[in-house]
Amino acid sequence: MRARNVSQTAAGLARTANIRQSTRIVAPQWKNSMAKLAPGRLMQARTYINVSGVRSEIRDRARGNLGSFVQLRPLSGKPLPQVNSWVVNFCYRAGAWLGISVTVLGLGVVGFFLYDATTYKHEGEQSDINVSQLALQPRRGGPDNLPIAEVFIDDDDCEAKKQNKDKPKLVVLGGGWGGIALLKSLNPDDYHVTVISPTNYFLFTPMLPSATVGTLEFRSLVEPIRRILSRVNGHFIRAKAEDVHFSDKLVEVSQVDSEGKEVRFYVPYDKLVIAVGSVTNPHGVKGLDNAFFLKDINDARKIRNQVIRNLEVACLPTTSDDERKRLLSFVVSGGGPTGVEFAAEMYDLLNEDLTRHFPRLLRNEISVHLIQSRSHILNTYDETVSKYAEDRFARDQVEVLTNSRVKEVCPDKIVFTQKQPDGTLVTKELPAGFVLWSTGVSQTALCQKLAKKLGDVQSNRHALETDTHLRLNGTPLGDVYAIGDCSTVQNNVADHIITFLRTLAWKHGKDPEILQLHFNDWRQVAHDVKKRFPQSVNHLKRLDKLFAEFDKDQSGTLDFGELRELLNQIDSKLTSLPATAQRAHQQGCYLAQKLNKLAHLSEGLSANDIRDGDLDAAAYKAFEYHHLGSLAYIGNSAVFDLGEGWSVAGGLWAVYAWRSVYFAQSVSFRTRCLLAMDWAKRGLFGRDLMSF
Amino acid sequence: MRARNVSQTAAGLARTANIRQSTRIVAPQWKNSMAKLAPGRLMQARTYINVSGVRSEIRDRARGNLGSFVQLRPLSGKPLPQVNSWVVNFCYRAGAWLGISVTVLGLGVVGFFLYDATTYKHEGEQSDINVSQLALQPRRGGPDNLPIAEVFIDDDDCEAKKQNKDKPKLVVLGGGWGGIALLKSLNPDDYHVTVISPTNYFLFTPMLPSATVGTLEFRSLVEPIRRILSRVNGHFIRAKAEDVHFSDKLVEVSQVDSEGKEVRFYVPYDKLVIAVGSVTNPHGVKGLDNAFFLKDINDARKIRNQVIRNLEVACLPTTSDDERKRLLSFVVSGGGPTGVEFAAEMYDLLNEDLTRHFPRLLRNEISVHLIQSRSHILNTYDETVSKYAEDRFARDQVEVLTNSRVKEVCPDKIVFTQKQPDGTLVTKELPAGFVLWSTGVSQTALCQKLAKKLGDVQSNRHALETDTHLRLNGTPLGDVYAIGDCSTVQNNVADHIITFLRTLAWKHGKDPEILQLHFNDWRQVAHDVKKRFPQSVNHLKRLDKLFAEFDKDQSGTLDFGELRELLNQIDSKLTSLPATAQRAHQQGCYLAQKLNKLAHLSEGLSANDIRDGDLDAAAYKAFEYHHLGSLAYIGNSAVFDLGEGWSVAGGLWAVYAWRSVYFAQSVSFRTRCLLAMDWAKRGLFGRDLMSF
Repeated sequence: MRARNVSQTAAGLARTANIRQSTRIVAPQWKNSMAKLAPGRLMQARTYINVSGVRSEIRDRARGNLGSFVQLRPLSGKPLPQVNSWVVNFCYRAGAWLGISVTVLGLGVVGFFLYDATTYKHEGEQSDINVSQLALQPRRGGPDNLPIAEVFIDDDDCEAKKQNKDKPKLVVLGGGWGGIALLKSLNPDDYHVTVISPTNYFLFTPMLPSATVGTLEFRSLVEPIRRILSRVNGHFIRAKAEDVHFSDKLVEVSQVDSEGKEVRFYVPYDKLVIAVGSVTNPHGVKGLDNAFFLKDINDARKIRNQVIRNLEVACLPTTSDDERKRLLSFVVSGGGPTGVEFAAEMYDLLNEDLTRHFPRLLRNEISVHLIQSRSHILNTYDETVSKYAEDRFARDQVEVLTNSRVKEVCPDKIVFTQKQPDGTLVTKELPAGFVLWSTGVSQTALCQKLAKKLGDVQSNRHALETDTHLRLNGTPLGDVYAIGDCSTVQNNVADHIITFLRTLAWKHGKDPEILQLHFNDWRQVAHDVKKRFPQSVNHLKRLDKLFAEFDKDQSGTLDFGELRELLNQIDSKLTSLPATAQRAHQQGCYLAQKLNKLAHLSEGLSANDIRDGDLDAAAYKAFEYHHLGSLAYIGNSAVFDLGEGWSVAGGLWAVYAWRSVYFAQSVSFRTRCLLAMDWAKRGLFGRDLMSF
Repeated sequence: MRARNVSQTAAGLARTANIRQSTRIVAPQWKNSMAKLAPGRLMQARTYINVSGVRSEIRDRARGNLGSFVQLRPLSGKPLPQVNSWVVNFCYRAGAWLGISVTVLGLGVVGFFLYDATTYKHEGEQSDINVSQLALQPRRGGPDNLPIAEVFIDDDDCEAKKQNKDKPKLVVLGGGWGGIALLKSLNPDDYHVTVISPTNYFLFTPMLPSATVGTLEFRSLVEPIRRILSRVNGHFIRAKAEDVHFSDKLVEVSQVDSEGKEVRFYVPYDKLVIAVGSVTNPHGVKGLDNAFFLKDINDARKIRNQVIRNLEVACLPTTSDDERKRLLSFVVSGGGPTGVEFAAEMYDLLNEDLTRHFPRLLRNEISVHLIQSRSHILNTYDETVSKYAEDRFARDQVEVLTNSRVKEVCPDKIVFTQKQPDGTLVTKELPAGFVLWSTGVSQTALCQKLAKKLGDVQSNRHALETDTHLRLNGTPLGDVYAIGDCSTVQNNVADHIITFLRTLAWKHGKDPEILQLHFNDWRQVAHDVKKRFPQSVNHLKRLDKLFAEFDKDQSGTLDFGELRELLNQIDSKLTSLPATAQRAHQQGCYLAQKLNKLAHLSEGLSANDIRDGDLDAAAYKAFEYHHLGSLAYIGNSAVFDLGEGWSVAGGLWAVYAWRSVYFAQSVSFRTRCLLAMDWAKRGLFGRDLMSF
């Protein structure tokens, strides 16, 4: 029994973990001396005592003498083995852990430096390269006899580009959300891709308000289009699309040359994607040159500089009290996400960073105002969300002026009319040192030109109309697509159903106007409609319900006139997709997938000499928009509208969640790293109030 | 003996480290079975065997039976204890280490988020504050009856500021190297400090060339002056100093108000420090509006945009081959550190990043040219250094044109004359898409105005002259100091010595012109001179040597005429301190130290009603410039001129060393973090070629 204990102890020692097992065999006499040891030394002490016990026991048994241990102790004669205290052991282990960690980290750093060292090129790469003569001196042609860029100077730059040289030419106008989503989902080897855009970077627009006050840096929100293009071995032309000649399949583009002269030329296409986005909607208001916009990086920089300029002028001894209050009155016109987020960021800046180094008087005299034409801010969001945002702003001393329409922006004030609860309009003025104009979007000049060119088929004043396959209405089928803010999907569900029903009625020999529709007929129609207009599914469900009700009461028939009215209502709702990054992104991805399919389909088709017909419908389903929800930052808290009545709003945790969403959606690993760095920077050092 | 071994073994187990000791007692029979174990399992096997040995031995001795272990084995009857293989153990330890590391890192991240969460202020701080009526409505006065900013709106913002309110007013003009060094070394409680500067940030100028091509971000090179000022509880006015009224002790400053109108007012001072820096020297060359400069952040941004614009236009199909070559011809005029570093960074950009995403044709047609008026680039550096730089550039295909003077900068070319080896001047032209002008510095408008106002006492055309205590010559003693590029220290050593010697001569009743100076006399003079002109020490040593030589040959006398000639030579050398950050920094630190001393000295002096006299000389030693060396980046290699003939030049290691120096010199923890991030960014993602 004893022996077994000892063996267990020794094995236990070897494993060190279950050392406590051995306490059982400690003789009572030893317990006293153990008690004298500091409690922390207990584990080692036990080990030691144990071992002595074993040793003594061996001697005892060898001599047949089972006397007490105490008597035997002097016989040992040699000094007690040194044991380490738990402090020493802990330090030893902590040291070991620290040592290993430092070594691993050190190796990481050294590794990074070694990697870094490989990124410096020492020798220039100047080898002979092939450039087509046609690329250097393009032939002229087209309606205006301009140079046609059929071949590019980098068409032979690498093997991949050489292989794509004779593939169908896919030209993308614009490098925004739609264009970039398309590029990121496109197969690399199917098309000769060219992107034409006046800026050579993609801008992550949803976080632009954060950049205006220095929470984020401009460079963290942008990614060079060339870098994104390199995946599909594409080409980039920094120029502005001016016109499209649909019959010649030519895009007319303009660029300012080094002498400041405008140069125009053509870029030919086989497939054209129009994704030029939108411009700020002036709503016919006077004096908008006194206001600031927020569409691109330059706008954001102008805003940042103006805000800091106002703060600096407000500090000067010569600035009067009224003037200081005016300079520090920041007015935002537009209660959509951009306006709300800008107001929130502005408030953060003033509240968190201004007071650190600027005179305290400024903080007291600052005011932020938000002018909204509707009765609530964030009116496209769930009602609870906009209520939350309004409460938050009320607490944060951001003045929200609802039911107000701006009449004029003057250099030193903004004039607006506010609808009173009794319905009367009152004209008011607000001194303003800064006015942001963010009240929705309207068509670009190119889109207006194209819509006019295409005539009656384009009846929407706000965007280019496409069918549900995103093909621009009025252009040769399968040539031209339009995605993103510049486009809208025409869901002519009503027309389609009505035609179908008319046919049905005549077939039954009845006048359609007095047709009583049966539920079974309706199911047939609905099935067909769902396939052609996936967007309408939810609305058709509503009709289903309606029918079910009719079915109960009046044996499943519906009056034709009633039905047409209902369908028209659905139509108008379907046509207005939101002008958001989300929609553009989905359309870009959809189009890329279809183009990928079409590229492989066309091989088979051209083998069979099939060139016409509704290839898009044959190749891929129609576009369907899935609303994934909306979110907005409202000053140390954020709101999420997840659609269908679900919404969340909260404080700091929601802010982190809001950031996480955008972090995940960000365009590249590079921008993600930069975003993380920026947020850490804000936490550590605050926002820097410098203008340049 | 056995027992002792066992006890040692068990103690060894407890310590685990010296477990090998126990192999001795393993019975030979067991060795065979041990051999069957994998070598990696040896340690655990030994432990186990040992323990069994102990167990068996106990039984053996108890029974008085000392038979072999092999016979005893079956008696044990129970399964052998499980031992872990070294792989399992290693994994266990690695897992533990990883676990601890992840936990520590995780805690770090959580800690950071918790800290971050505290940086969001939820409630606005709008408390009542005291603002002097005089700060809101300053009284008018001075030569032009302008408002005088005697009290500031933030004078009562906090306790520290309140305490400094009635301290002597120290006004610093400029927030460059000199001004910032002064602020960083000044005692917080001695002065009411005000900084007046047209920009509200300090710019780390030596790294500006890196920012032009995106190696570094602009924001990594700047630090808000307000943040630096907060240490001394100072005040900042973003305005431009226009004039100084020395008799009224008023600085006249101008600022543009929100309507674009210039507003002027006075800022009173007790002590004024002029540190306004310098402007680019036009050298009277025509067409400089076609060239770019590199003095501030806006210049750097303009350059960055122009470079990228040129690259983009060069990609267009309508750009002819000649035009493309011209657009890609980058010319730098000036072979000093700025010009050389810009050329090097430009070359890096073109070599490392351009080829990644731009057409390869561009790389072949790009050229970088460096025009230098002297016979070598970096001509202020050691000769080996400039030779190294020239060799490096020759290898990197950066064309260095020495002995060349620019005559005119045209929009599409640069015209210069080059001195041929035979001494003739040849006029040459170079097509240029971009011209950088970086050929030294000249005086700002303010300095010119002040020099003119002070009259003959300011005879230097290039800078304001001060005495060795950095007091501006011609102004009331101890009122006005000038430091940095805008100033130069007048070391009138010659005048001083000559006067001294003249006195000496007349005392001896001799004509000074025929005075033969003895070595002992000279030592006396030198002692006095050293104290007043610390800068001259090295030169005086040379004189000492010279004297020693004369001493040997002609019994220690020197001709007065010879001496004067020598002294004048020394003088002219001493007066031209380099226009570098290093000098400005040293002067700023020196002045701060002196002002700290003066503040406490003045208490005693005012108690004794002493107001005049050379307080500066009484309080602190004269300024002495210590040249710590110069360094320059020359394209994946760097050169260090450590002074007195010592110089180092090398490849990548030198680049890292060069960065380390600037990293250490950087103005704040914030900028250091950002610099490190930027360098890591360049390594990971390259430079981003985007313009905005």
